Amino acid sequence: MHMEFPTPAIWFPHRVSYGETDTMGVLYYAEYLHIFERARSEYIRALGMSYAEVERRGIYLPVREAQCRYRAPARYDDLVLVHTAISEWGRASLKFVYELRSEDKTRLLASGMTQHALVNAEGRPVPVPDWFRNLCQNGGDA
Amino acid sequence: MHMEFPTPAIWFPHRVSYGETDTMGVLYYAEYLHIFERARSEYIRALGMSYAEVERRGIYLPVREAQCRYRAPARYDDLVLVHTAISEWGRASLKFVYELRSEDKTRLLASGMTQHALVNAEGRPVPVPDWFRNLCQNGGDA
Amino acid sequence: MHMEFPTPAIWFPHRVSYGETDTMGVLYYAEYLHIFERARSEYIRALGMSYAEVERRGIYLPVREAQCRYRAPARYDDLVLVHTAISEWGRASLKFVYELRSEDKTRLLASGMTQHALVNAEGRPVPVPDWFRNLCQNGGDA
Amino acid sequence: MHMEFPTPAIWFPHRVSYGETDTMGVLYYAEYLHIFERARSEYIRALGMSYAEVERRGIYLPVREAQCRYRAPARYDDLVLVHTAISEWGRASLKFVYELRSEDKTRLLASGMTQHALVNAEGRPVPVPDWFRNLCQNGGDA
Repeated sequence: MHMEFPTPAIWFPHRVSYGETDTMGVLYYAEYLHIFERARSEYIRALGMSYAEVERRGIYLPVREAQCRYRAPARYDDLVLVHTAISEWGRASLKFVYELRSEDKTRLLASGMTQHALVNAEGRPVPVPDWFRNLCQNGGDA
Repeated sequence: MHMEFPTPAIWFPHRVSYGETDTMGVLYYAEYLHIFERARSEYIRALGMSYAEVERRGIYLPVREAQCRYRAPARYDDLVLVHTAISEWGRASLKFVYELRSEDKTRLLASGMTQHALVNAEGRPVPVPDWFRNLCQNGGDA
Repeated sequence: MHMEFPTPAIWFPHRVSYGETDTMGVLYYAEYLHIFERARSEYIRALGMSYAEVERRGIYLPVREAQCRYRAPARYDDLVLVHTAISEWGRASLKFVYELRSEDKTRLLASGMTQHALVNAEGRPVPVPDWFRNLCQNGGDA
Repeated sequence: MHMEFPTPAIWFPHRVSYGETDTMGVLYYAEYLHIFERARSEYIRALGMSYAEVERRGIYLPVREAQCRYRAPARYDDLVLVHTAISEWGRASLKFVYELRSEDKTRLLASGMTQHALVNAEGRPVPVPDWFRNLCQNGGDA
């Protein structure tokens, strides 16, 4: 099934808070996108550079599309793990994929993706710089 | 383009608050899902019944999938209009579609969808009840 | 009790969404501050100028302190009304007060306040400009 | 200044996400209450029991009042530390206090408190049970 999750990948842990749940007693559907954002920030940090530093170098990654498929609920106080990787590169874009799993990783709770443009401070598309692609593919190489 | 938005449809107005924006100065991408939820609640209300009442009748509409394509940013204090309708019915499911537009409706800012299961209080799938389908297709008929 | 709510005041209506509630089935406590923000934005707009326009004139109102007392819960789909006014002026500060009430105004659900500094774009305190004070005290006078 | 922060206390780390910031480029004021909630959950967990387990034992801690004083902004990607403790016990209530500090703990960014009732599943006030007080004062004693 999920034998081919892209690499490099990280597992980002997240504890579900009260404020993220709703009247149904489950993690509210919009909160998954907040968690995905945290996961991709940590992904970039794990490779050796914070996303804040990427922005200081003049590269921004606005989200062009987001999608999430909700398979099983997460509840208050659950520790979930988000498998996170970049699955595709375009000339001036990239795509992150996410799988949100139970603490023991056996249950797939949700899967999603975010498609990003690469733009400069003026919002204009820029080709993926070599230093950024090297960073994301090898880590630490910047 | 978008000549064939399904009917019946509503336009749901939403004022972008400070708390919904982010460091880039734009409406944060997860907030669109909150706004979509508000829009579909008002959609059902406009047809003559609140979603709270639908739940009291034993029908719940958990989100199974959500997707949003971000075309142009919205900013603090912008009034946006969300064109909202049901585009598909399954045996025990339905799909909402949304277009988020500028106040004068000329600019498409985002388009998205949410796919919902129909379940009972125990979370088991239930076929779309006639009263609910009539409500959503004709309005007021409950 | 609440015979002396300051004037001018507005009643800001807010419909509680699913995403604002939590596992206890009630409006989550942090969401009140979001609603207060919406209420004070509408307050300024009601006086004849948007807060966005106030910022364009170089005046910012960062929150220095916020407080809320929760008296009775609000639930999904409730329409609540937020009584909103400015209660105090300092040389370079002002204070908003809020009462969140049930739709028929008979039940007080929460009361709170936010204390704001007036600062310029560099974040330095500025005395309340006459045009802003006139706006807030008389409305429309700008 | 803050020489007498109550004990036992924890330091809860939190990384500021994009979605928590606003157009001013700073952590939005309502988000502090979300972070305080995370901090007090971890506080109880650190003592040897999750808050979810406390609820399963029939004790709920709804917030009766919340307050926060904002002293210096936090920004995207900042790691902040939240000093967290219980400062007061009532017969059927307790009070948490929080100090949010920069990563190196030298700068106080915000201080706040939350006042909680102890109630049962029906929402009725209950005196603080011995097991809960022992837990919070000694840790692990349940």
